[in-house]
Amino acid sequence: MSNVSNPTARTRVVREPHRGIYDREAVNQVLDEGMMCHVGFVVDGQPFVIPTLYGRNGNVLYLHGSVASRMLRNLQQGVPVCVTVTLVDGFVLARSVFNHSMNYRSVVILGTATMVDDPKEKLAALRAVSEHVVPQRWDDARQPVEKELKVTSVLRIPIEEFSAKVRVGPPVDDEEDYAFPTWAGVLPLETKTGAPIPDERCQREFPEYLKNYSRKKKL
Amino acid sequence: MSNVSNPTARTRVVREPHRGIYDREAVNQVLDEGMMCHVGFVVDGQPFVIPTLYGRNGNVLYLHGSVASRMLRNLQQGVPVCVTVTLVDGFVLARSVFNHSMNYRSVVILGTATMVDDPKEKLAALRAVSEHVVPQRWDDARQPVEKELKVTSVLRIPIEEFSAKVRVGPPVDDEEDYAFPTWAGVLPLETKTGAPIPDERCQREFPEYLKNYSRKKKL
Repeated sequence: MSNVSNPTARTRVVREPHRGIYDREAVNQVLDEGMMCHVGFVVDGQPFVIPTLYGRNGNVLYLHGSVASRMLRNLQQGVPVCVTVTLVDGFVLARSVFNHSMNYRSVVILGTATMVDDPKEKLAALRAVSEHVVPQRWDDARQPVEKELKVTSVLRIPIEEFSAKVRVGPPVDDEEDYAFPTWAGVLPLETKTGAPIPDERCQREFPEYLKNYSRKKKL
Repeated sequence: MSNVSNPTARTRVVREPHRGIYDREAVNQVLDEGMMCHVGFVVDGQPFVIPTLYGRNGNVLYLHGSVASRMLRNLQQGVPVCVTVTLVDGFVLARSVFNHSMNYRSVVILGTATMVDDPKEKLAALRAVSEHVVPQRWDDARQPVEKELKVTSVLRIPIEEFSAKVRVGPPVDDEEDYAFPTWAGVLPLETKTGAPIPDERCQREFPEYLKNYSRKKKL
């Protein structure tokens, strides 16, 4: 299993090629810090893009959902799929409108999804999704029983054809613009948790593992 | 122009149909609070999903990018496109793993992109994208000149075939699970700005309009 994806014509970064990254470790870091992906698939020539959660186990990405889900029913037919994960790190505020940009890290994975039938892999995959989204929650909640697993589909997508695109750092202005009288730099963006809202019948203390929640700490 | 999209077979929410929203005002609120969209298009049967910024002007969504961009070169050929905007509002932590969910608001727009050639509409569209992402920045930065406009493509996508899907509120557990000893409720998520990083040649104070930056305030 290669640690570098030889970019295909389909995954090679065309625009700003210096931002292209084909290294598996870097791609995994983005996948692990991201929370949600956008899944693209085609029905009758029309693309659909649907947000969903995911988990990673080694070189496999897992999606899950109801067996009644239109997306999962389509994907399990073995159609080509594109999974994109995007982290938005900040506004890049240049002196000229034209040189404005975003700092971001995004990963694109092309592949084909297959249904996970093996009960052991299915349970491990659901646990991987759960641990990916809220680490330590699985062991602190009532775990799935047979009838729940029955109405849940899990799909596996091998992480084989992939690329990442990354922009970091300050704005780059044209030399003659540096005298323009405006603030310039990066305004970072981050996703944070707000004050927890216990439900009406909750009788427990808010747990430590949720207090320290951060997408960043996995890096 | 209708304020309600009659959901087509393609935009009708199938899974959890009570979460489906076809009201233009509600959809516009999500579009205005969102910052980035994920654009899906098909090349040789393979879907691609690319993150990009956008702006809205009435019932039109605008995308922009370099004329060298692979995405824009593909889209301007009039291929079917799907634009998805997703706001992640919080983790819904139930007592059972199975009833865990997310609070979210997402919009899916299906359509066809066309190139904006009219210079007036093009400039207005670029301003709409800029104001959408960082309000008030356009007037505080050096505005585009002819040669910059020349290497920038703008695409228009009519917001006509659309739907939104929204989940709000606390977790819903099975009655027999309420005795399970774990914290349950919603852990809200929000995108916040961090400490600004002026670039090395910046000589200006950090402006008020950036200090008060929030996606929420447009609601």
